[in-house]
Amino acid sequence: MTFPQPMPFFPAAANFAAGNDTPRQFLERCLSHVEKFEPAVGAFVCHDIAAARAAADRSAARWRDGRPFSPIDGMPLGIKDIIETADMPTEQGSPLFAGCRTGRDAASVAALREAGAVILGKVVTTEFAATEPRGTRNPWDRERTPGGSSSGSAAAVSCGMIPAALGTQVVGSILRPASFCGCVGFKPSVGRINRGGSYDYFSQSCTGVLAASLEDAWLVAVNITARAGGDPGYPGLQGPAEPPPPRRPRALAVLRTSGWEEAAPKARAAFEAAVARLADAGIALADRHADPVIEEVEEAIADAAPLTRSINAWEGRWPLNTYRDRDATKLSRSALERLAMAEAMSLTEYGAAITVRQHNRETHARLTARYEAAIILAATGAAPVGLGSTGNPVFNVPASMLGIPAVSLPLLSIDGLPLGLQIAGFVGEDAALFAVAAAIRDLQGAAA
Amino acid sequence: MTFPQPMPFFPAAANFAAGNDTPRQFLERCLSHVEKFEPAVGAFVCHDIAAARAAADRSAARWRDGRPFSPIDGMPLGIKDIIETADMPTEQGSPLFAGCRTGRDAASVAALREAGAVILGKVVTTEFAATEPRGTRNPWDRERTPGGSSSGSAAAVSCGMIPAALGTQVVGSILRPASFCGCVGFKPSVGRINRGGSYDYFSQSCTGVLAASLEDAWLVAVNITARAGGDPGYPGLQGPAEPPPPRRPRALAVLRTSGWEEAAPKARAAFEAAVARLADAGIALADRHADPVIEEVEEAIADAAPLTRSINAWEGRWPLNTYRDRDATKLSRSALERLAMAEAMSLTEYGAAITVRQHNRETHARLTARYEAAIILAATGAAPVGLGSTGNPVFNVPASMLGIPAVSLPLLSIDGLPLGLQIAGFVGEDAALFAVAAAIRDLQGAAA
Repeated sequence: MTFPQPMPFFPAAANFAAGNDTPRQFLERCLSHVEKFEPAVGAFVCHDIAAARAAADRSAARWRDGRPFSPIDGMPLGIKDIIETADMPTEQGSPLFAGCRTGRDAASVAALREAGAVILGKVVTTEFAATEPRGTRNPWDRERTPGGSSSGSAAAVSCGMIPAALGTQVVGSILRPASFCGCVGFKPSVGRINRGGSYDYFSQSCTGVLAASLEDAWLVAVNITARAGGDPGYPGLQGPAEPPPPRRPRALAVLRTSGWEEAAPKARAAFEAAVARLADAGIALADRHADPVIEEVEEAIADAAPLTRSINAWEGRWPLNTYRDRDATKLSRSALERLAMAEAMSLTEYGAAITVRQHNRETHARLTARYEAAIILAATGAAPVGLGSTGNPVFNVPASMLGIPAVSLPLLSIDGLPLGLQIAGFVGEDAALFAVAAAIRDLQGAAA
Repeated sequence: MTFPQPMPFFPAAANFAAGNDTPRQFLERCLSHVEKFEPAVGAFVCHDIAAARAAADRSAARWRDGRPFSPIDGMPLGIKDIIETADMPTEQGSPLFAGCRTGRDAASVAALREAGAVILGKVVTTEFAATEPRGTRNPWDRERTPGGSSSGSAAAVSCGMIPAALGTQVVGSILRPASFCGCVGFKPSVGRINRGGSYDYFSQSCTGVLAASLEDAWLVAVNITARAGGDPGYPGLQGPAEPPPPRRPRALAVLRTSGWEEAAPKARAAFEAAVARLADAGIALADRHADPVIEEVEEAIADAAPLTRSINAWEGRWPLNTYRDRDATKLSRSALERLAMAEAMSLTEYGAAITVRQHNRETHARLTARYEAAIILAATGAAPVGLGSTGNPVFNVPASMLGIPAVSLPLLSIDGLPLGLQIAGFVGEDAALFAVAAAIRDLQGAAA
């Protein structure tokens, strides 16, 4: 058996410039992985290979002329099917929207096309980017979930069908599938990548990237935001046009979080080994026992899951209420349960919840004076067996609730299956997070 | 000739409870105004009279049983055609979306239906709620613009076709048409009424209300937000379920703004007379010459128009770019010009603009220590002759840029045509603004 392996774009692009490779050849290598993995994995809702080939050929001409639109010109991409595309349906993982065409690209997709990216297809989302799975399988083991809600994004990237895909996260929908499938996941600071045209309206929601490498994740994100900005009113992703070079941190906070009790023993052991390697490398590490500020942060994030559930319920009342009125039989039980929870809430309760969240964010921000980032497990273990659930997001929800940027790096493993190491930064400091994450990757890789 | 006259719902509802009137009878009175004015005014894009009658009959049964869903149960409403409705097309004032059905209600519309309101139809918006007019005429003079972009909302309300309509404002799109047509306009604090399902993505944009009275405006707004909240992450409109009772202010700031130079002499005179009446009533009034804080605020809002233009251009890059790619011939010249402006901008320039805006907001907030509200002209004069432009928004853009709540009250006039007096409050203090505005209305009404 061959293991699934992501296919990074960043080094290949250097060859396009040198004339040793072309975007079309890169795409064909991706398509060979689609042919090999897609029948069993089911990552795509739809794709348009002919259009992708034509786009790759146009990109090849630009590289040949020395005039690529951007460093990701020619990069094949998958778009999570909660995000609008002008040339393909946007089904939101719901039978209510089967075949639905909106006739426009989302802000992120329009920006990617402007940057020369090749949109290969739409990748599977759970229903409305929430919990109900839509059948995608984990490329490492077809009996296991790929995670969700960015199920198709993670599955397609991790077996090299595409070097990157757009995903979205409001609870754990980028970091968890990245961990389960063994690719890089990047959830940016809240508001920093324009969500226009993503059917994803929660105040914690972010559009982010699942990618073969940190470099690819950064290039996709920064090339969106240079053209489409962030959400209206936000300054957009701040940072260099090229991937931030590795910068070894002086000090990291170790957050075990309330997920620790739920983590598999082997996941804990893998995490502690990673912590030990960083300590061996001379990085100062502190946890709740060593620093009372970290203890306060641990307490502030302990209830991240129920708080997020409550905030999301209220914010998801619409449009679920209109979908139910249209045809309740096409909604999952979980969607109807969330709606019932919302309809039992008051505006006052919601106001109280977002006040608590704001307080938690301020508590977390105090870490910035002492640490360059925090390290956290990305999942409670390897992807669980079964396709009926997308797994436990307990380790991912703190970053969502806090609005901070976080990456999951495929550095750990359990019994041959991938497990992510999560690095979380500070609001607006996404580039600094990438620099620290790259250094940690290089250190862990050297030790592994 | 009979003058157009709004038809308030609030006092009528008391009669529903007493059994002296019914929502169906109220609707029929509205429909008699539709019959009389609509052929010349053109406020509606579409309406469904049979469905409205059926909804009004259901409401009548609830009032008869003593179980109305809310104080606005049975209120006939128009929905600005930038806002989604499940049962009617949403055309956005653009031929690109002629007949477009999205199959769902916007958050605000779903909330209004839950409250028992009767959705009579969609009312005309300019193209994409921006500048290009769509033919609606001013009920006071068919050769004059009703203002925009909430053109149909203001026109329909001011001649009693409906007691209230939803509008939206990012520059002057609620307050200006309210002034030109002679009805109440309410632009809430930014984020306080859920915009979900409104094709209106700007960071300054608000969904608001054009209404026959302050009471109707409040009841519509508060009944939306009780059910749908504000934009995700915002606490929603804060205040009582009933219209806030009048509360006479101690002190008001008089803002003449950079619009003063552009105002018609009769508009200035009408404003100064209103100021004099308030002074006679014992309210302390101060302007830039009397208070250096007001001087600072005047300076902070002096460039509100170009700053807003720049912010809106960047934020409107998407979706205009995808609409252009789809069919540029169906976009107005002004839309294409805004897009060209956006494409010449950088993320850095946008970031600088929103930083200036934030600074301006902080400057304005200093007024709260000394004044309960500010009074400002609502327009440079009466509605101008001609349908090619929706008029000058210079007096409305400061409240949009500052994100503060503001109302336009139809208290002034020029040569028999309406002119609004604008009262502007403080972020999140929408209910306090209504209380002050009601007191000013009562004072001005007594003096007029």
